Amino acid sequence: MGRYDDSYDANRSETDETTNLISSEKVDGTAVYSHDGDKVGHIHHFMVGKRNGHVEYAVMTCGGILGMGEEYRPVPWDALEYDTDLGGYVINIEKERIGQTPSYARDQEPTWDRSWGSTIYSSYGLPY
Amino acid sequence: MGRYDDSYDANRSETDETTNLISSEKVDGTAVYSHDGDKVGHIHHFMVGKRNGHVEYAVMTCGGILGMGEEYRPVPWDALEYDTDLGGYVINIEKERIGQTPSYARDQEPTWDRSWGSTIYSSYGLPY
Repeated sequence: MGRYDDSYDANRSETDETTNLISSEKVDGTAVYSHDGDKVGHIHHFMVGKRNGHVEYAVMTCGGILGMGEEYRPVPWDALEYDTDLGGYVINIEKERIGQTPSYARDQEPTWDRSWGSTIYSSYGLPY
Repeated sequence: MGRYDDSYDANRSETDETTNLISSEKVDGTAVYSHDGDKVGHIHHFMVGKRNGHVEYAVMTCGGILGMGEEYRPVPWDALEYDTDLGGYVINIEKERIGQTPSYARDQEPTWDRSWGSTIYSSYGLPY
């Protein structure tokens, strides 16, 4: 599991261990930046695999920026990188492309099936 | 990442995909059963690696059972298995041993350092 993940151990040290972990209760509000360095929104919640315990999507809300205030955008975990200096996640696409990624209204939870997953992943240029 | 994890793919099918994922907002209340099949508590929140996106601990509360109502118990992810029939997690130790695992008061968030992690893992018989 996570403990044996190379990228995880490479980043671990005595000093940063505490901040390596975040409570699922506290992810709401973590900043998300575009590839170009602009803040484009924040994380609202994670979608987690019940069995494997891996975050599959970080669901982002853009808080009115780009006119996407009332929507949720699921971002594949592989499209995000945590930046310690920024204290938030950097998304691997340009700001202009974010508006073209799949989203849903806050009161309309999608069905998290293969079709939806494939649509999301391809919009971020990732294999599903 | 999660997508390529063997155990995950083995469990994935067209029909159960939707329920494979759980929102981090909704983990609170998921039942936890002992190895012997008794319900011993429920999950309150997850502790997630910010960088690797893996749940490292499921933090359980026992809701008064076994006299541990006012405490949180961090359970290593590797000590849990999701049981679809039960609709909850089964913990890999006997009910009697749960009272001996590390816990903390709700108003006393621990420092998630190596020492604490090692203590938790060893109490569940897992290498750290």
